[in-house]
Amino acid sequence: MAVIEEVLSANESYATGFEKGDLAMPPARQFAVLTCMDARIDPARALGLDEGDAHVIRNAGGLASDDAIRSLVISHHLLGTQEAFVIGHTDCGMLTFSNDDLRGTLHERQGIDASHIDFQPFPDCAERVRASARRIRESGLLPDDYEVHPFLYHVESGRLEALEDI
Amino acid sequence: MAVIEEVLSANESYATGFEKGDLAMPPARQFAVLTCMDARIDPARALGLDEGDAHVIRNAGGLASDDAIRSLVISHHLLGTQEAFVIGHTDCGMLTFSNDDLRGTLHERQGIDASHIDFQPFPDCAERVRASARRIRESGLLPDDYEVHPFLYHVESGRLEALEDI
Repeated sequence: MAVIEEVLSANESYATGFEKGDLAMPPARQFAVLTCMDARIDPARALGLDEGDAHVIRNAGGLASDDAIRSLVISHHLLGTQEAFVIGHTDCGMLTFSNDDLRGTLHERQGIDASHIDFQPFPDCAERVRASARRIRESGLLPDDYEVHPFLYHVESGRLEALEDI
Repeated sequence: MAVIEEVLSANESYATGFEKGDLAMPPARQFAVLTCMDARIDPARALGLDEGDAHVIRNAGGLASDDAIRSLVISHHLLGTQEAFVIGHTDCGMLTFSNDDLRGTLHERQGIDASHIDFQPFPDCAERVRASARRIRESGLLPDDYEVHPFLYHVESGRLEALEDI
């Protein structure tokens, strides 16, 4: 079966008897999660989120990129979230390449010059999470009492580790 | 109980008896999902994803932002995904404000000039999904046979609707 058919079939099962059609737009538990796109992380299962509970923002590395901060600003100022969990993880793919590596691959495969793109690889997950937490706090776009919690998720054990704050 | 304690307690339950500690980094089902941060969407439950299956990228609006494209490029060229589902949804918060509205709020609450930030509100969900799909295809950063599937998720019914392509 093609992936698209598998996804539609799984969705048909999910939608049958769906009873969550009247949830409000603002997250009920008033928080946001920023984490990596990594396939091994299921934020809902790993953090105990039901539909309607929390915003979830994800990108390669779980970085506080400009786009992630745009999302957090909308999440707080328009939809009432009051805190964010920033969650990096062990065995992250962002540790496995350099900008030059990926730019070389793109030149070879796509015939494209990607020298203007920073793919944002990093050498230390915990340090990168702390840097993301700092960037959110120092953006000036969220109030002083907005809380940012840095965490490391262990893909080997399913366990969240609170990181010492900065 | 504070949110952070609730999350850690839920994670303790998840990690107890965790049996997914040896999943590979590359997504087993070789696809990526790009969708909105909206709290009502649980991509794993709604699309039938297990841990390890697929990359999930999320931001406010589910947009093919530069950061989302950075993530898709890493997903494909380094971790082998071959197709992406781009999923907008009904009742999206991005339809409820303008850049001027949010910049005004930020000026008032944070005393900050956010005139340089485009928060990317939009008036039509399906059209925005199609535009995101086009932007990914036309980036030049993914191969010609990389497939992009535009979808609309109905928060009222839990149902995915395939959008006519462009």
